[in-house]
Formats: sequence, structure tokens, C-alpha cells
Amino acid sequence: MLKSTSLLSCLVCIFLLQGMVLSAQKDVDQLMLKKIHREVLLHGEVYQWLRGLSEGIGGRLAGSPESMEAVHYVHRILDTLGLDAVRDQPCIIPNYWTRGSVEKVIVQTDDGDVDLSCTTLGGSPSTPKGGLQAVVIEVQGLDDIERLGRDVIEGKIVFYNRPMDAGKIETFHAYGKAVDQRVFGPEMASKYGAAGCIVRSMTNVLDDVPHTGVTIFRDKVKPIPAMAISTRAADKLSALLRKGMYNVYMETHAENHGPVSSFNVLGEIKGSQHPENIIVVGGHLDAWDNGTGAHDDGAGIVQGIEVLYTFKRLGYQPKNTIRFVAFMNEENGSGGARAYADSAKQSTDFHLAAIESDAGGFTPRGFTYAADSSVLGAYKEQLESGIEAALCPFDIYVKAGGSGADIGPLKGQGALLFGLRPDPQRYFNFHHTAIDRIDAVNERELKMGAAAMTSLVYLLDNYLQRPDAANK
Amino acid sequence: MLKSTSLLSCLVCIFLLQGMVLSAQKDVDQLMLKKIHREVLLHGEVYQWLRGLSEGIGGRLAGSPESMEAVHYVHRILDTLGLDAVRDQPCIIPNYWTRGSVEKVIVQTDDGDVDLSCTTLGGSPSTPKGGLQAVVIEVQGLDDIERLGRDVIEGKIVFYNRPMDAGKIETFHAYGKAVDQRVFGPEMASKYGAAGCIVRSMTNVLDDVPHTGVTIFRDKVKPIPAMAISTRAADKLSALLRKGMYNVYMETHAENHGPVSSFNVLGEIKGSQHPENIIVVGGHLDAWDNGTGAHDDGAGIVQGIEVLYTFKRLGYQPKNTIRFVAFMNEENGSGGARAYADSAKQSTDFHLAAIESDAGGFTPRGFTYAADSSVLGAYKEQLESGIEAALCPFDIYVKAGGSGADIGPLKGQGALLFGLRPDPQRYFNFHHTAIDRIDAVNERELKMGAAAMTSLVYLLDNYLQRPDAANK
Repeated sequence: MLKSTSLLSCLVCIFLLQGMVLSAQKDVDQLMLKKIHREVLLHGEVYQWLRGLSEGIGGRLAGSPESMEAVHYVHRILDTLGLDAVRDQPCIIPNYWTRGSVEKVIVQTDDGDVDLSCTTLGGSPSTPKGGLQAVVIEVQGLDDIERLGRDVIEGKIVFYNRPMDAGKIETFHAYGKAVDQRVFGPEMASKYGAAGCIVRSMTNVLDDVPHTGVTIFRDKVKPIPAMAISTRAADKLSALLRKGMYNVYMETHAENHGPVSSFNVLGEIKGSQHPENIIVVGGHLDAWDNGTGAHDDGAGIVQGIEVLYTFKRLGYQPKNTIRFVAFMNEENGSGGARAYADSAKQSTDFHLAAIESDAGGFTPRGFTYAADSSVLGAYKEQLESGIEAALCPFDIYVKAGGSGADIGPLKGQGALLFGLRPDPQRYFNFHHTAIDRIDAVNERELKMGAAAMTSLVYLLDNYLQRPDAANK
Repeated sequence: MLKSTSLLSCLVCIFLLQGMVLSAQKDVDQLMLKKIHREVLLHGEVYQWLRGLSEGIGGRLAGSPESMEAVHYVHRILDTLGLDAVRDQPCIIPNYWTRGSVEKVIVQTDDGDVDLSCTTLGGSPSTPKGGLQAVVIEVQGLDDIERLGRDVIEGKIVFYNRPMDAGKIETFHAYGKAVDQRVFGPEMASKYGAAGCIVRSMTNVLDDVPHTGVTIFRDKVKPIPAMAISTRAADKLSALLRKGMYNVYMETHAENHGPVSSFNVLGEIKGSQHPENIIVVGGHLDAWDNGTGAHDDGAGIVQGIEVLYTFKRLGYQPKNTIRFVAFMNEENGSGGARAYADSAKQSTDFHLAAIESDAGGFTPRGFTYAADSSVLGAYKEQLESGIEAALCPFDIYVKAGGSGADIGPLKGQGALLFGLRPDPQRYFNFHHTAIDRIDAVNERELKMGAAAMTSLVYLLDNYLQRPDAANK
């Protein structure tokens, strides 16, 4: 009896002690997360770096001279941080595209020509010498083209005008429901013999700012000139078309140059306990040429660098290897993502987690995560057993959801993938436009995103185990 | 045996049925909250109303002609919404203050005069004819004045230069820790014989924008001229003072005019079941005269109106009376809040809840709540039993915390008080400045705040019971 009482007391003691240790560790973590936030808010360099990238270099489509300037710029910054390794990783850009200097969409009316605010879509070809002139026909989606058929479409300029749904809280969902018009609309129009294509800009606001973005012509579909017009211009054109038939004149000097080589840029702090376990943070280095890519995705680049720099400043030595990756070519080809994933596959390293920031430099609301179904359960359990709770006091959620285009290919390799989710309300004011500039980014919001990423990496580094290890 | 089995089955059935009803009600609520968000995002009038209030009328300190224009403007809008009652409620403004047309803070150096970007503090008097010139002395807080004593302070211009802590995530906490310099610093300086006072602007960013705000001279303390200078100007002045003694020249033509009368504006939808139970939504109608009061607090005004308008548009008939209140004079006297609370005290109505929006028109992060300690427990339980959970899918938190200056006096009357908490990172870029204008407000963010308020009011209307009823 005495013996069993002692045993019980002992067990209770161990249990209590364990509870105290756990609770003390929780306090240490909260203190560290506060320290991270304070450090980034007071001494973070993100905003200065972003100024150099966006205002200093500007638009930087993969393959352009500016994109190479950006590679050197990021490499130089990484070189100053005292990291364990910095390198450029070669990649192939499937198609280097240039916009050219002339962009015109003009409706010809009885009262004269009406200029529409426009921008050429990436991947589309130039108009014929002397421009392109044809009757314009408005449609609401790709189905309409099939429904109307070649008889109606042939020789015309197709105008896709289905708006993004401004009633959706999640602007990215609204974007997802409308962007097929831009990505595949011109291809579909071409299949049915259209001479050109105009797309309503992908934004939930009504203004005069046109939004560019990639359009894709697969297989043997003949590329046709394709441009986006601002939402106000789209409304204007639509109002005209309700009254009658109109000719539109399009002119663009865009050019597809084919494959070129470029680079991702990598920098890392080697893990002290598990250097073979990699946690990636990053975004994409390329940006559309009509703006300066401040939100998209300069923000993700500088926030990723800040994660490493904050750890260095705080003297935090990670257990796993923390690697920043500046992916090249997210916007029009994903050459960088492919090169990185291929190289990861060939390595003996294991990608434990990856965090992508590619949704703007706004106040962070949380992270969404995804993983291969074979490991998702094991990861989910670990997230729910403390990591989510640790971020809760900072009003940062952790939810199942998407991750990002550049880290997506790592899913099959067993990594837990995260996408930073900044507040999405303002993003589509700036996305792929000439006004995506440094003055559209608030320094404190940008820093809060970097601090959220650093906090998550800290927690993953301390608590996330490889699914095989976690199952043991 | 048969009997008891039947009884058990019956109980199980009732239990299951109740569960189903509850779960079905949850679905109905979620649907309604989605509907509210969609309605506000697509058809909300907040942004147009705010344009009229901020750009159309502009700054509107209580007692000014502009503040009366604002009273009429809001009354007119309310008149168009098909409400059950709209009225102006008289209140006394303790002191109508005007800024005058000249504002100068100049450091006299060997290299010539250096102009500092400045704004007069509300409630402070004008400088003597010909301006005020004196040696300036920098301090970090009110304690310093006591420590230095009359010998050092007398005849000087006191310069308070303790910055807001930019390392704090919660900018309002940083503000709270610094603002004593502006509110009570000049009074303290005057007590020790200072001739004038300069305060570093209350903001966590470094720029050239001066921030005004109220300063208070209580009892028989002699009011002295008091002005704020921009943070960059404060750094400049401080840098000079590290090198030697300097004279500063101050000039302001501010004037205190004493008490005047004004109005709150009220509009309401009568409750169908408990018209005597009031749920208040609102903000303050007055705004500092150096800007146009778009965030502070035009946003709160238009969001409060939008709550009523959304219910009308959706055909939602509330069970309790939903009352919008545009409070006058929050900035420098709280005459409106006092009048409203006094009138509430004399009424037989019961204030069930009140929601104040006075922290900017940014993306809503959640609500903080407070109540008298005698009823807080009963309310907390109700919030936790479903209301918090219903807002969770919208990433809107509900936490214990502060409420607001205008609804605060209702605390003693048993009301559950809420403050809308928009994201706080950008607020102190604009607070009390000339750049607090409509272009600093994002339409979707403003609408999201209105939708969050409408959602909370809907939930309170359906689930919040008077503490006496809840305890039964």
C-alpha cells in the first residue's frame, strides 16, 4: 500500500512537473514571439529593402535585365547578413516576354475615337503592322465562345466582361472565379477564329487602372493579341455595345522571345540539430513590368529575408536549416519553382515546411496550410497541439487552405506548406498594375507580416517533427 | 420497463431535436451574417456618406458652423432610411475652441531661423501679441518638470519629446503610454511657470505631419500656448538641443470661446418584442479642424448609420430597439456623451448593449467588450455560449477590453459595451492630422467594419438577454 501510494505521488509529481515545464516553455515561446515582433517593428529592414527593389529596380519580369539586377540586389543583401550559405540557383525561363512601348485600345464611335485605359497581357503577341481593327463582341465567359461558335466569333475582337464578385469577403476567391477569362479566354477566342481579345481587368474596384497578367496559348493554338482594359473602361465599352455594333482598334508591340536562363536566389542558416531538415521561407522575385512589384511580390521577398535577419539579430540558432528562397518567374512560367523542386528532389535533405508570402504586404491575418494527404493528418495534429495556440494571442490564425504557387511542387515531397494570408481587402487595387508601388505599402503592416512569418518559423523549428518521426 | 424505455427514447428524441434545431439556427445565423457582409460590400453607402462628411463638410469641432452642418447632414441621411424615429438631442459643449489662422514654431539658430512643422493643441490659448519667444528645454515626461522645479522651468518653453513606442503591436497602447504629455503636459509646465509648451506629435511614424489633440488646463492653472510639432521636427529640435541652448519663437491665434449648445443626432428602428431594450451603435460627429475627420471619426458615424440601413434593406425587423447615435464633442469636452447618458438615466428604457466605432475605418479585427462588474459575468457567459463562435468564421474576435469614450458613461447603467477594433497599424499615421482625409480610407475596409458591426448587432439582438432575465 505504501509502495503504491509512493508510486502514485511520484507519478503525480512527474505529471505536475511536466505540466510546469510545458507551461514554462509556453511562457518562453510567448516571450520569444513578442521579442520577434518588437525586433522587427523597431529594427526591421524590410521597408528599405523593398524601396530598393521596387523603386530602385522597378518591374522585373523573368528574363529581363531588371530581373538580373534584382538577383544581384537580393544576393548582395543576403551577403551582408552573416548567413551560412548564399547562392544563385540556375533555372530556365520558358518564355521571356516584352511589352513594347505602344498600347492602344480605341473604340471608334460616330462621335469620334474613345481611348480605353489598357495594358497588354503577358504572353500575347503584337498586333499586325498598322494595328488590328475589328468588330468587338462582348461575352461573359469562355462558355459563351463555344455557344456562339466560329460563325459569330471569327475575325472579331472578343471582349470578356464578367466582373470579379465584389460581394465576396475573400477577394482571392473572387479573383479565382474570374481569372479564367484572362488566363484562358484569349486562347479560347483564338480557337474559334477571333482576331484579338480584350479582358475586363481583374479587380473588385471600379477605376481607370488596367491590370495585366499572364495569358496562355497551349498546344497549337495561334496566339492572338490580348489586352486588359480598366473596369471603368470595360463598363464604358459595355454601355456602348448595348446600343450597337462597334469597331475597336488594338495596338500592342509585345514580343515572345522564347527560353532564357535565370536564377533563384537562396540564403540559409544551417540547423544545429537537424541541418538536413529544411524550412523554406520566401516569395517570388519577378514582377510585372507595368509597375514596380511592391506588393506583388517585393513584399514576400523582403519578408522572407527579414525572417533570417531577425534570427541573426536575436542570436537565435535554429535547430533545422532555415532557407530563404527568392523564386524567379512565378508570374509567367514558374521556371524557378520547377528548378527548386527538382533540385530538392535530388537532394538527401528533407523539406519539413515551406512558407510563401505572395498575397501582398498588408496586415497579416494568418496562415493557411496544406500537405500531401499521406502526411496531412500527422501535421494537423502537431499544429493543433500548440503551434496554433501560440499564435492566437497575436490574432494570427492557422487554418487548412492553400499555400502558394512556388512552394506547391514541394507538396509531393512530404513538406507542410503554408501561405501567409495578409488582409485581402486592398490587394486587387494594386495587383499587376502601375500603382503597385512602395507608397501603396505601409511599413508597419509589412513588418507585421515579416514578424508573423518569423514567429511561425520559430514555432515550426521548435515543435514540428517529420511525419515519420512524429508517428514514432 | 417498456414505459421507461419510451421515456428514454422520447428524451433522446427531444435532445436530438433540440440539437438539430440549435444547429439549424446556427446555419441560419451564418447565412444571415454572410448576407449582411454581401449586402454591405455590394450596396453599402458608407463611402459616399463619408465623402460628403469629410470632403464636403471637412473639419467640424463641436460648436463650429461645420459641426452644425454635420448635424444637418446626418439628420438628412437618417431621414431617407425609413426609420421609426430621427431626432437631434441637445447638448452643451463646455468650450468652443478655434485655432486661428497663424501657427508658427521657429527655432532661432546661428544659421538662421528653422521652421518646425506644427499645429496648435485644442484648448490652448493664443500667444501674446507679437508671439512668444523663450529658451526651450527638452523633457521626457511630466515627472521631469517636478524634478527640475520652478527654478529651471519658469519662463521657458517646455518641449515634451518622449516618443510613442513603435515596438508595440497595439498602437493604441503606445498612444496611451505617451499621450499624457499632450493632455496634461502643458498644464504641468504652466504650474511650474513655463511660458509655453511644445509636444512631440503622437504617432509611431517619423514624418513631417503634426498631430493636434486636446490639452487640458484644470482648476486655476493658467492656460499657456501649446503646440505639437511633427516627429521629424521633434528629432531636429532635439538634435539641436544636444548641442546647446536655443530660443524658440511660437505664434498661435487660438481662442477659447466658452460654452455653446449643440446636438447629438439619433435615429432608430423600434424593437418588435422589446422596444424598451436599446442597442446603441455609433461614433462621434465632431472632428479636429486641421483635417476632415475621415477616419476619426467619420468612419464610425457612417458605419453606425449603415447598420440601420442594412437591416432596412434586408427587411430585418429587430426584436430590440436599434439606435444609432452620432455623439457630438468627443474630441474636446464629451458634452454629447454626457447629454446622452443623462437622458438614458432618466428614461425607463434599458440599454442592453452599445457599440462604438472610433478607431478608424480599417479592416475590422474584432470587438473588445466591457461591462460593470456586477453584470460582466452574466454577459460574458452569453457571449461565450454562441456569439463569439458565430463571428469566428469571419475572423472577427470578441475579447474583454475597452469600449469607447462616448458609450463609457452607459457602463453604470448595466449595458454591455463594445469597441470595434479595426487593424491599428495605420491609424496613427492619420489621427488628428491634415491628412485624415477620404483618400486615406479604403472603401472595402470601411464596409467590412460596417458589416462586422451589423453582424454583432444582429447576434446581440437575437441572443443577448438582460442580465436579470439571463439569470432567471
